[in-house]
Amino acid sequence: MGGNGINVLKGNIIYTENSDSFNIIENGFIVIKDNIVEGTYKKLPEEFANIGIEDYGNKLIIPGFVDLHTHASQFAIRGIGYDKELLPWLETYTFPEETKFEDVSYAEKVYGEFVDELSSEGTTRAVIFATIHIKATEILMELLEEKGIIAYVGKVNMDRNCPDTLKENSDESIKNTINWIEACNKKYNLVKPIITPRFVPSCTGYLMQELGNIAVNKNIPVQSHLSENLSEIRWIKELHPECENYGAVYDKFNLFGQTKTIMAHCVYLTDNEIEVIEKNKVIIAHCPTSNVNISSGMAPISYLLKNKIKIGLGSDIAGGESLSILSVMKSAISLSKMRALCFKEEEKALTLPEAFYLATKGGGEFFGKVGSFEKGYEFDALVIDDDNLWKTGKGTIYERMERLIYLGNKRNISDKYILGRLI
Amino acid sequence: MGGNGINVLKGNIIYTENSDSFNIIENGFIVIKDNIVEGTYKKLPEEFANIGIEDYGNKLIIPGFVDLHTHASQFAIRGIGYDKELLPWLETYTFPEETKFEDVSYAEKVYGEFVDELSSEGTTRAVIFATIHIKATEILMELLEEKGIIAYVGKVNMDRNCPDTLKENSDESIKNTINWIEACNKKYNLVKPIITPRFVPSCTGYLMQELGNIAVNKNIPVQSHLSENLSEIRWIKELHPECENYGAVYDKFNLFGQTKTIMAHCVYLTDNEIEVIEKNKVIIAHCPTSNVNISSGMAPISYLLKNKIKIGLGSDIAGGESLSILSVMKSAISLSKMRALCFKEEEKALTLPEAFYLATKGGGEFFGKVGSFEKGYEFDALVIDDDNLWKTGKGTIYERMERLIYLGNKRNISDKYILGRLI
Repeated sequence: MGGNGINVLKGNIIYTENSDSFNIIENGFIVIKDNIVEGTYKKLPEEFANIGIEDYGNKLIIPGFVDLHTHASQFAIRGIGYDKELLPWLETYTFPEETKFEDVSYAEKVYGEFVDELSSEGTTRAVIFATIHIKATEILMELLEEKGIIAYVGKVNMDRNCPDTLKENSDESIKNTINWIEACNKKYNLVKPIITPRFVPSCTGYLMQELGNIAVNKNIPVQSHLSENLSEIRWIKELHPECENYGAVYDKFNLFGQTKTIMAHCVYLTDNEIEVIEKNKVIIAHCPTSNVNISSGMAPISYLLKNKIKIGLGSDIAGGESLSILSVMKSAISLSKMRALCFKEEEKALTLPEAFYLATKGGGEFFGKVGSFEKGYEFDALVIDDDNLWKTGKGTIYERMERLIYLGNKRNISDKYILGRLI
Repeated sequence: MGGNGINVLKGNIIYTENSDSFNIIENGFIVIKDNIVEGTYKKLPEEFANIGIEDYGNKLIIPGFVDLHTHASQFAIRGIGYDKELLPWLETYTFPEETKFEDVSYAEKVYGEFVDELSSEGTTRAVIFATIHIKATEILMELLEEKGIIAYVGKVNMDRNCPDTLKENSDESIKNTINWIEACNKKYNLVKPIITPRFVPSCTGYLMQELGNIAVNKNIPVQSHLSENLSEIRWIKELHPECENYGAVYDKFNLFGQTKTIMAHCVYLTDNEIEVIEKNKVIIAHCPTSNVNISSGMAPISYLLKNKIKIGLGSDIAGGESLSILSVMKSAISLSKMRALCFKEEEKALTLPEAFYLATKGGGEFFGKVGSFEKGYEFDALVIDDDNLWKTGKGTIYERMERLIYLGNKRNISDKYILGRLI
């Protein structure tokens, strides 16, 4: 850190102000003041001339990755069971696994692995599902706090349509949630609670109503799942014939943008749902790896993005196999190409800058001014050493970014900053 | 090696006799006699009791991977330019890159990198495109031979619709091909020549006719591209209005199964093409990573497989970004899931054993008895250490195979055998 809380980094700077294109400053400077970006420059302004420069040479400097949707409690079952679709997959793999988090020592082990991996993959901000278990959830929050990752963590609420081992008494679920939220506020600096009804089928109207009340009264954000799978959507119609669509169920209970809200998946939205999502400023967590693995479908992300819907990316462990947001970006582009082939006239594939935008500034918006190197943004960054990917020649900065997404991995991340701090 | 040319390995053995399911022998034995599989056993037969056992403990032992289609000459441009489709991608990236292989020192560098990577990814057999340049092609063949990889390599033939720097004089192309094939037969043990008309648009009828003659007269196998992209297919119709379809052009010139033939891609086959492919025993190289990256389409692999068409996998560098057949298997499953969602009534997604079969025995058939651990098969194998993927608990052998495909990489390959020899 230089004098006056000022820090100067030098390298090949890439970020997105909007989803149309990259901002690229080759051999540029980024000035950080009190952990906030002061500016990016091709030539360092005179006023910062006396600050020691952290020179990253030919490396890339990019914003840290934001993971808007993942289940820490499913880390130990990632990469298996992908012959099933959502509902049988939940029954067969997920619910039995989540039951184990009653055991605090199991939670310590799996959450420890999860947090180490999340950090090493370059995720600097994350929004995470835990399980119904308060003790285990607190362990996860402590581990994230220790690791320096800025995160929202949800104790999951469920009081119907699940095994007895995971089915909460509705009133206890509500009471525990309130107590947990109050305890959280005293314990953590970087990690915050988020209200987490698992999804409509797992929560009675009464539980959703009360969770919505807590969210609004305490101004706590909300996360859940929306329109992931066709069988799931048919089930919602049976459970809530009184609601026009899936999103309307959440909306009725103040869980749909009344406070800051993330809805994961959104593969099969109706026009009405899209309208309300836009009006209520709900953020969509697009989870392409998961949507492919458990055969959910191809979300119309390119269309939604062009229609100014707020979107970020989610690794969705364990529907997704990996916490790598690099691989999630690749998957988002791939899936959008296949969608574009299927619905040729209407949609285009996601571009590289669009996928990068989703992984950084798109998801970052949930955290405030996060995910960009524009002035005023909180400085989360990854320093990328991609020499191993370019043994013959070296491409343009754009090409280096493309190859990083297609062939790079956590071993290419050489340094990491979260809120100005080198981690 | 034990006495009498016999070798015994112990470990968790997995292979596919057919595409329906895995053959799994947990803590089993595999006996190799003169580099050929003698048998796999749950309990080692008495007669082999005195042979020293190579005990791989809890590791997995699987057949080596077969890559039926890849362009070594495009290795330096992998993972970039994927906003383009086939024809503009060839013009913009591929042709300029292939021109560089006139320079022998450039060829040495890139082919050296390619062969190192191919080997480290666990590919034990490969069928490869070089370029039009004989010298560079011979360098590639020597490097493969030194590395111990069993391969077919094609000097590419092109005499129309390409930059002047790559356009051959038809008669010289033919003469050079004949001379090269004759020279090859004396030089290499493991590496063989394959006749390689780039694809119909790049070759005049005269050139294809003569290449077909060489193939038939000298009994040399053939590789090319078929029905990869819709614009390409429209172009073929313009170039060859006399032929019923794309495949018929090759068939007319004896390049379609008259000798052992691989056709890469086959995304948009007609019923007639499928019939002739079956009749002529043409092997399809399915290249899912490439078909997604350059937006070619979703080949009906599950349908073709169920109809007894011969199919293997191809990494198709540089349309595909990686030589990892593990990642190609994952992509094959993913792409088939999306295809199944689009064409719901007709097709199912590829299963894990089906993808594994394609990557081993399916492609291995091109080389003879290769890609399985059944009695009489040439012993190519990978020993897999997947401990890093299973820090909490350890799954079944099936689950370990699934997670390896979804999350493993070359660092999980701890030992490698090609034709019985530890490499």
